[in-house]
Amino acid sequence: MENCIFCKIIKGEIPCYKVYENDMVLAFLDINPVNEGHVLVIPKKHHRDIFEIEEEYLCEVVKTAKKISLKMREYGIDGVNIFQANTEAGEQTVFHYHMHVIPRKKDDGINFSREMLRHLKKMDPDQFESMRKALEI
Amino acid sequence: MENCIFCKIIKGEIPCYKVYENDMVLAFLDINPVNEGHVLVIPKKHHRDIFEIEEEYLCEVVKTAKKISLKMREYGIDGVNIFQANTEAGEQTVFHYHMHVIPRKKDDGINFSREMLRHLKKMDPDQFESMRKALEI
Repeated sequence: MENCIFCKIIKGEIPCYKVYENDMVLAFLDINPVNEGHVLVIPKKHHRDIFEIEEEYLCEVVKTAKKISLKMREYGIDGVNIFQANTEAGEQTVFHYHMHVIPRKKDDGINFSREMLRHLKKMDPDQFESMRKALEI
Repeated sequence: MENCIFCKIIKGEIPCYKVYENDMVLAFLDINPVNEGHVLVIPKKHHRDIFEIEEEYLCEVVKTAKKISLKMREYGIDGVNIFQANTEAGEQTVFHYHMHVIPRKKDDGINFSREMLRHLKKMDPDQFESMRKALEI
């Protein structure tokens, strides 16, 4: 897609620090790393977000995220977070589907749980049941 | 696995607000929701984390996360975050692989980016290249 920075990286028009590539996906270092070794995995075909991405690309992305996690562990990291943002309301900034693979070290100070706990919603059983019905597939 | 709360939910020994189930995965409301409708997707076979989960289960989990995201959008949410924690250092608290599907609303105040930006690491091209080589598959 024109004017998509990740499509330009795929085409080689913008350089990247590539760690893995196959026919369907590309994985490279995030140039704004949360921790050293922070990787992004993207499908080579442009999809905007999780609502749009085709299942075969989605599987290949997540299988690649697992491969990279294993490689990170071999390298010596202690844990991994997977993070993926969709739409502006969901804090997406580049509108080409991408999965963050963030290496974690013991006591690195990063605290996603704190951000989650800060927003915990109280719901009673009726509210849970009504939400369950609304989302049931 | 004995004493695994998610295995007990799968076996029906502990109740849950189920939104989707097939042979391989189960999806249910998180009882500590970051936003109303926060869902967890888990493999029915016990796997500890991303390092351990078999590829076919991983694909089924992420395809289910997509299905649920689409259902959430139908319901009226504005965005979705996917979050997944591995090992204690990576803030995992239940040691049965699980993927969070967190519905987002415009201006809901949740801010994962802030937590990420707070920890950005400065790296020069040599450091990037050395990390790239270390993680290359």
